Amino acid sequence: MMAAVTALTLEDITAARHALGQRIVTSPVHEWEGPALSERVGPGTRVFLKLELFQRSGSFKARAALLNMLRLTPAKRLRGVTAISAGNHAIAVAYAARELGVHARLVMIKTANPFRVEQCRKFGGEIEFAADAHAGFARAAEIERQEGRTLIHPFEGVVTATGTATLGLELCQQVTALDAVIVPIGGGGLCAGVASAVKLLQPRCVVFGVEPEGADSMHRSFAAGEPCSIERVATIADSLGAPYALPITFELCRRNVDELVRVSDDELRQAMRLMQRECKLAVEPAGAAAMAALLGPLRGKLAGRRVALIVCGSNMDTATYAALIGQ
Amino acid sequence: MMAAVTALTLEDITAARHALGQRIVTSPVHEWEGPALSERVGPGTRVFLKLELFQRSGSFKARAALLNMLRLTPAKRLRGVTAISAGNHAIAVAYAARELGVHARLVMIKTANPFRVEQCRKFGGEIEFAADAHAGFARAAEIERQEGRTLIHPFEGVVTATGTATLGLELCQQVTALDAVIVPIGGGGLCAGVASAVKLLQPRCVVFGVEPEGADSMHRSFAAGEPCSIERVATIADSLGAPYALPITFELCRRNVDELVRVSDDELRQAMRLMQRECKLAVEPAGAAAMAALLGPLRGKLAGRRVALIVCGSNMDTATYAALIGQ
Repeated sequence: MMAAVTALTLEDITAARHALGQRIVTSPVHEWEGPALSERVGPGTRVFLKLELFQRSGSFKARAALLNMLRLTPAKRLRGVTAISAGNHAIAVAYAARELGVHARLVMIKTANPFRVEQCRKFGGEIEFAADAHAGFARAAEIERQEGRTLIHPFEGVVTATGTATLGLELCQQVTALDAVIVPIGGGGLCAGVASAVKLLQPRCVVFGVEPEGADSMHRSFAAGEPCSIERVATIADSLGAPYALPITFELCRRNVDELVRVSDDELRQAMRLMQRECKLAVEPAGAAAMAALLGPLRGKLAGRRVALIVCGSNMDTATYAALIGQ
Repeated sequence: MMAAVTALTLEDITAARHALGQRIVTSPVHEWEGPALSERVGPGTRVFLKLELFQRSGSFKARAALLNMLRLTPAKRLRGVTAISAGNHAIAVAYAARELGVHARLVMIKTANPFRVEQCRKFGGEIEFAADAHAGFARAAEIERQEGRTLIHPFEGVVTATGTATLGLELCQQVTALDAVIVPIGGGGLCAGVASAVKLLQPRCVVFGVEPEGADSMHRSFAAGEPCSIERVATIADSLGAPYALPITFELCRRNVDELVRVSDDELRQAMRLMQRECKLAVEPAGAAAMAALLGPLRGKLAGRRVALIVCGSNMDTATYAALIGQ
């Protein structure tokens, strides 16, 4: 049973970027250069980092959270929103809620990074903790039902994909003639949008999706031909730890992503270290996933090409970050 | 005994930026936003980070190294260059030498960060190690004499200041109506140039220079009214560890810097941690010095203002960086 064909249009994406306006930063693109690039990826390769970790709220999640909330009726805005999140989506919803004067009651998983909890609170989000993702989704659904709040989904939905597609739109305007773009996949909301925009604007650009080995729901879904769950999430990239794919996101990825690859925790850590030294960026594991794919499973395949990496975000306390890049 | 009055002109600085051309990146400016800014600095404050750590060679040093070498006669280029450096200047000279097809024999202090040594080698620099700064300066002078090479000074000289002034020129073009700019000082070459450019282009902008407590040669020189040495350099900001001021740099700073402040090692570490969490940047201590000044000695003074921080560079291996931001 497939969902009806879903596709984003350039008109929708452009309108979404316009609607987001100044509440969203057009995140800069920084070209990674230097001797290590040639050694690691191959001579003549151009690598463009889309620095979405400089986005408000510290990740791309602000785009879709804000777009979803902008499209709520005044009556719904008045009743408030809820969300379930390992962290970055909660911060984004809290940020968007503050921007629009909406109340946000957020469910965070109790293992959420302390910096994310703190950021969320600083934006005015009211937080409840859940034991795990299952309990959290259940509690958010309960809040939705009991309080009449709107659930802002962390990755599923056409509006969500349209929101993340604005990142792809910007990228294609910032860098011409890309040969490849590498996009991290958790639930796939980022990739669904970015891949759609890239295929509309630079159709010859190959889109790679990258998942952690321990959270590869999109791989399994592609193999099965339908959205699948995984039994257990086990990755240091907690921001990419979605336990399942969902239909709209799955379909947009299936139609617009050329190839999926997986990276190990060790490859993620190596990429974090390289980005600290070479790119001067302090990124959480998810933010290093595209680099990990470039240096790992895609090594050699993109030599001499024009490649964009989506550095999707970073929100992490110093102790955790230092431990991840340290021994 | 004062040197003759030295001043840079806007014409010289603009010509220098033009001469550097595409060999130097116009480093982006990123505005630091988010709840912590308001808490730490005061509501309504705008903080613009000049991301010179994205410069080729990883620091601002590339600007002056390249400009100095562009101005060498063909005969001098053929005889090669030498330099003495704790690291970043050596990388910059190696980078510039490779760009211009010049041979570089570089003296690095043996405690130089291993990433800096590696970067320097990767750009083709030939390296000798010296026990300390004194021995290093002596050896570089010897190489200069014996081999007829040109010594590219790490901070002194009108051409050097004109090179670093191109950073100030860019900043003033990127951000209008600044109230203050905070510039790290080691030998003062960066500050001499940036302060000169800022006073030419935005004369109402207040220029603060920041030194580590354990390497405050410019403070002592300002107090004495002439360039002074310090007995002992003791700071985690090794890139700011110049043992003395020199006349041209001193005079340009004295004429264009409004106020000097000092930051402790602990303030530098705190600023590094904050930049990791809040700004998503992995910076060595020198790169965090301007932030440390904003949050430390200048705290409260710049609330509600438009402030630029010069994030002057970062080249550091992962283990050292992790240890500095960790416990």
